[in-house]
Amino acid sequence: MKIIPLGGLGEIGMNCMVLETDREILVIDCGLLFSDLEHLGIEFVIPDFSYLVERKDKIKAFIITHGHEDHIGAISFAIKAGIKAPIYASAFTARLIGERMIEPGLTDRVDVRVLPEMGRVEFEDFKVQTVPVNHSIIEACALIIDTPEGKIVHTGDFKIDPTPYYGKAMDLSVFKKAGDEGVLLLLSDSTNVERCDHSMSEKKVYNSLEQLMAASEGLFIISMFASNIGRMGQVLEMAAKQGKKVALAGRTMDGNARVAMECGYLKGAQNILIAQDQISDYPRNEVVLLATGSQGEFGSALSRLSQGEYAPASLLQGDQVVLSSKFIPGNEKAIGRTINALFKQGADVIYDAIHEVHVSGHVTRPELKLMLEVVRLKFFVLIHGEFRHLVHHSRLAIEAGVPEPQVLIAINGDVLELNPNSLRVTEHMEETRVLVEGRAGGDVSRLMIKERRNLAEKGVVFSLLVRNSSSRRIVAGPEIFAKGIVHEDQEGWLIEEGKKIVKKIVKKYEDALDHGESYKEDLQETIRIELRRFFNNNIGKKPTVVPIVLDV
Amino acid sequence: MKIIPLGGLGEIGMNCMVLETDREILVIDCGLLFSDLEHLGIEFVIPDFSYLVERKDKIKAFIITHGHEDHIGAISFAIKAGIKAPIYASAFTARLIGERMIEPGLTDRVDVRVLPEMGRVEFEDFKVQTVPVNHSIIEACALIIDTPEGKIVHTGDFKIDPTPYYGKAMDLSVFKKAGDEGVLLLLSDSTNVERCDHSMSEKKVYNSLEQLMAASEGLFIISMFASNIGRMGQVLEMAAKQGKKVALAGRTMDGNARVAMECGYLKGAQNILIAQDQISDYPRNEVVLLATGSQGEFGSALSRLSQGEYAPASLLQGDQVVLSSKFIPGNEKAIGRTINALFKQGADVIYDAIHEVHVSGHVTRPELKLMLEVVRLKFFVLIHGEFRHLVHHSRLAIEAGVPEPQVLIAINGDVLELNPNSLRVTEHMEETRVLVEGRAGGDVSRLMIKERRNLAEKGVVFSLLVRNSSSRRIVAGPEIFAKGIVHEDQEGWLIEEGKKIVKKIVKKYEDALDHGESYKEDLQETIRIELRRFFNNNIGKKPTVVPIVLDV
Repeated sequence: MKIIPLGGLGEIGMNCMVLETDREILVIDCGLLFSDLEHLGIEFVIPDFSYLVERKDKIKAFIITHGHEDHIGAISFAIKAGIKAPIYASAFTARLIGERMIEPGLTDRVDVRVLPEMGRVEFEDFKVQTVPVNHSIIEACALIIDTPEGKIVHTGDFKIDPTPYYGKAMDLSVFKKAGDEGVLLLLSDSTNVERCDHSMSEKKVYNSLEQLMAASEGLFIISMFASNIGRMGQVLEMAAKQGKKVALAGRTMDGNARVAMECGYLKGAQNILIAQDQISDYPRNEVVLLATGSQGEFGSALSRLSQGEYAPASLLQGDQVVLSSKFIPGNEKAIGRTINALFKQGADVIYDAIHEVHVSGHVTRPELKLMLEVVRLKFFVLIHGEFRHLVHHSRLAIEAGVPEPQVLIAINGDVLELNPNSLRVTEHMEETRVLVEGRAGGDVSRLMIKERRNLAEKGVVFSLLVRNSSSRRIVAGPEIFAKGIVHEDQEGWLIEEGKKIVKKIVKKYEDALDHGESYKEDLQETIRIELRRFFNNNIGKKPTVVPIVLDV
Repeated sequence: MKIIPLGGLGEIGMNCMVLETDREILVIDCGLLFSDLEHLGIEFVIPDFSYLVERKDKIKAFIITHGHEDHIGAISFAIKAGIKAPIYASAFTARLIGERMIEPGLTDRVDVRVLPEMGRVEFEDFKVQTVPVNHSIIEACALIIDTPEGKIVHTGDFKIDPTPYYGKAMDLSVFKKAGDEGVLLLLSDSTNVERCDHSMSEKKVYNSLEQLMAASEGLFIISMFASNIGRMGQVLEMAAKQGKKVALAGRTMDGNARVAMECGYLKGAQNILIAQDQISDYPRNEVVLLATGSQGEFGSALSRLSQGEYAPASLLQGDQVVLSSKFIPGNEKAIGRTINALFKQGADVIYDAIHEVHVSGHVTRPELKLMLEVVRLKFFVLIHGEFRHLVHHSRLAIEAGVPEPQVLIAINGDVLELNPNSLRVTEHMEETRVLVEGRAGGDVSRLMIKERRNLAEKGVVFSLLVRNSSSRRIVAGPEIFAKGIVHEDQEGWLIEEGKKIVKKIVKKYEDALDHGESYKEDLQETIRIELRRFFNNNIGKKPTVVPIVLDV
C-alpha cells in the first residue's frame, strides 16, 4: 500500500495524509496553513488536491482527527475540487466542519458523519478505530487503522494530560494493546520535539488564571485561541466560583462557544455569560472578557482593545490582560505590538515570558519516547513538524532503540510504499501546495506572487503613447503614470524626465526608415528597458514598466 | 535642561537621545531600526532629525556609546540633513562609523574623533566621561555626564561580564563613585528586563563552541553577528588550538574583521584565516567557516549555504552549523526556514533552543537591580526597550526602592525638563520617525506605504480611453491593463468584462447633453468607482484603479 503525505510534513500546518491500497483511498485530515504572504494578498496555503481529484472514485472517506484549522480548514476546497467522500469526525469536530461550510455555500454538498468516542468505521481495506487523546481542543483523537499490510497508528496531535478539563487522561493501554498485536507503522506528532520538559496539564493553567482573576481590581481580559474549549470551560468555572460574569469578544469565540454548548460542553454557561454590551452594567472587577487576538491579529477583539477601538469597553488603569496562548513563530512582532499598545492603554499585561499562563497541546520529548515504547512499532514516520522537527524526532526514535533503517524522514509529496517487510520512498511529486486568496477567492500562482512582490517593493510605471494607425506617427503622449514609486514631490520631476526619455526613443524610431512588422513591439520593449534603467539610476530600483502604444 | 529621546524609547532600535541646555545640545547615539516593512521596499527606519536640524548650530557633538547599527546607523542621514557636529567614539567604533560613510559618499564630510578608554570630552555645559562596559561588541561604553543641573548616567547597552574575551569586567566602582557624588538621573538599558536569569559570560560560549568544534567531523560553520568581535576572537583562538583554519563568509564579516585587526584585535588571525576559495585546499574537518546570516537574511552567506548556492563549499552529511546568536523577534520564520533548509542539505544544525551556543549582550533583572543600587539615582528614565520593557523596568526600579514619582516612563518625542528637584514631560512632539528605502534611497511617506500595500494586496488596473479633443468623442479604447490581480487565465475574462463596463459608462456620458467643465474628471471618477465595484464583486477585492482619458 501507499502512504502519501500531501501536507504537514515539513511545516506545522495543512495536515493531509493519503493511505491508498489498490482499491481504496483514505484521507486523514485536510487542513490549511496560515500564510506569511498576507501582505501579498495570500490568506492561507492548502495542499494540492490533484492527486486525489484524479482518483476521486477510490476515496472512501476523510477521517478528521480534530477540529483545528490545520486539520479541517481545506475540506471546503477538497469539496469544491469535486471530491465527494464522506467525512468522519467526532460530534464537536463535525459541527465545526459544518460551520466552515456556510461561507463557501457548501452546506448541502458536505457529508459529515459523526463517530463516537472509540468509534469504528470499516471499509474493505481499512478498519479505522478512533482513540481519544488529550490536546488543546476537545474531542481530539488518534487513529488505529488495520490495513491489508498491517496495523498503522496515527497519533494525530496529542499530549498526555493526566488531568484534562474535559474528557479523561488518554488511555495508553489502548496503544499498548495495539503494540501487543503488532504495529507495522507509527505516524507521530513532532511539534514539540525540541522541548525536554514535560508538557504540563491544562489544570496548571487553572491555578495561575484563578489567582490572577481573583486579584484583579479591574476588567480581567483573557486572550486565547477560540478553539480551546477546555480552557474556556475552566474560565467559566472559576468566574462562577468568584461570582463574576464572562463576556465573549470576537466572532470565533462566540461561534465556538455556541458549538461547544450545542455539544453539551460549557455547562451552566448561560448563567455566567453576558453579552458584550452588558459589560458596563456590572462593576468592572466583576467582568471577565474572553477575547480573540492572542496572536496580535489585526482587527481582532484584543487588537481593537489595544487601540481603544473596542466599542463595549475601554481599558483603564487596573485592568489586566492575560495572553493565555503560545507566541506562534512569525507572530512575535504583531503580538509584541499588541502588548505594547495594551500597556500604553494603561492595562497590565501578563504573558508566558513572565508568568505561566499557558500550556502547550503537544507532547514533548519524554512523552514522545513513552509513546514509542508503548507502541513498539516496526516502522516510524514523523509527522506534524517542520523539517528540523522531523529530524530531531527521528533521532529521538533512534535513541529510543528503533533501528535506524526503520525510521523514515518523509516530506510532502513523497510516495511511500509500505509492506510488512519494508517502507521506502518510491516516488516524489513536486509542488504540493496551493496559495489561496481567502475562502471566497481562488488560488494564486507563484508568478503572480512575484508580480505582486515587485509592485510592492518597486512600484509600477505606465508609459502611454497614441499612434495613428495609418501614418504610424505618434499623435499623443508620452504620458507617464506611476504608482508606489516615490513621494509626490519627487515624482513630478521623475515623470517629466521619463517623458523626455520616451520622446527621444520615439524620435529615433520615427526617424528610422524601417517600420517593420515588429516595430510596435520593439518600440515598447525599448521604452520598457530605458525607463527601468532611468528609474534605477535615479531611485535605485527598477519598477515594473508597462509600455503601451495605442493605435487610433 | 531638556532631555529628548528621538528614538529607542518604545522600540529596540534607532537609539538617539538629545540633551539640551540653553546654549548647547549633545546627541547620544544616532541609530537605525531595521524595518519590518521590507516587503514594501522599506529597508530601515531612522529618527526624525528636524528638531536637531532647526537647532543645528547649538549641537556640540554626537557621543556614540558603541558600534551597533541601532546606535550608529543613522549618522549618515544626520550629516546629509546638514548637521555638522563632531562625532566622538572609541577607536573601533570610530572606524566602523568611517566605514559606513563610504557608500553614501560622506567620508569628507564626517568629523569623527577618537576617545580613549575612560575618555573625557568637555563642552561648556556638558562634561562627558566614557566608562567601558561589557556588551556583545567591543569598546562599548556608558557615559557619566556632568551637566549644570547635575550628574547624568547613561548606561548605553551593557551587561556585567566577569570574564569577557576582550577588555575587562566592567568596573562598577566608577558608577559607585558617581553615586557617591550624587546622580541626578540614570538612563538605563531595558532590553532584557523580562529575563530573571543572570546574563552569562561570553566565556560560557567558549566551552560549548570548543567542544562542538573539536567533535566536528566535517565542515564546521558558525553563524553569528559580524559585529561580535569578541566571539570572533574566541573562535579564532579555539581554531588555532585545534589546528584548524577559519574562513570568513559574508561582506560584513570580512569588513568587521579587517577593522578589528586594524584596531589591534584578533591577534595572530593572519595565521589562521584563509580565503573562502581556499576552503577546498584543506581537509573538511580542518576548516571553520564564520558566516553571516544568523537571522536568516536572504542572500547572506548562511542562506546561500542552505540553498546550495554558496560557491566556495557545498554542505555534506557530517557538516555542522551552529547558530551562535539570538533569534531576533520577527525573524523566527526566516531563521526557521534557513535551519530547515540546512538540515535538508544534510548538515546538522545546533541552535539556542537545543544547545547553549549564545549569550546575550544585555543585562538581566538581577544585574539591572545591582546597577540601580550602585548608582543611587534621584530620577530614573528607562531607555532601550519596547514600551513593555520600559514598564517592566520601571516596576523593577520601584521594587528596588526608587520612589515611584521619581521613575518616569518616557517615549520617543517626549520633551523632559530636568532640574535638581524635578523631572517631568512638558511637551510631546508627534511623528518621530522616517521610513527609508535604503542607504542610497530617500525617505518614504506613510501615504506611499499605503499605496504600496494596496498594490501588493489588491493589484492595480489602468483603464485607458483616447478622446478627440475637439469633438470630445472617444476615438480609441477602452483598453484595460492589470498587474497583480489574478492568474492570466482568469484575467482575460475580467479585462473583457471590465472593458464592457467602461464602454457602457462612455456611452452614457456621450449620450448626455451636458459636457461641462468637469466632464473628463467625472468620467474618470465614474470609471474608477465602477471598475473597483466590478472587481470587488468578482474577485473579492478592490484594486487601485487609474482611469485615464487622453486627448488627441
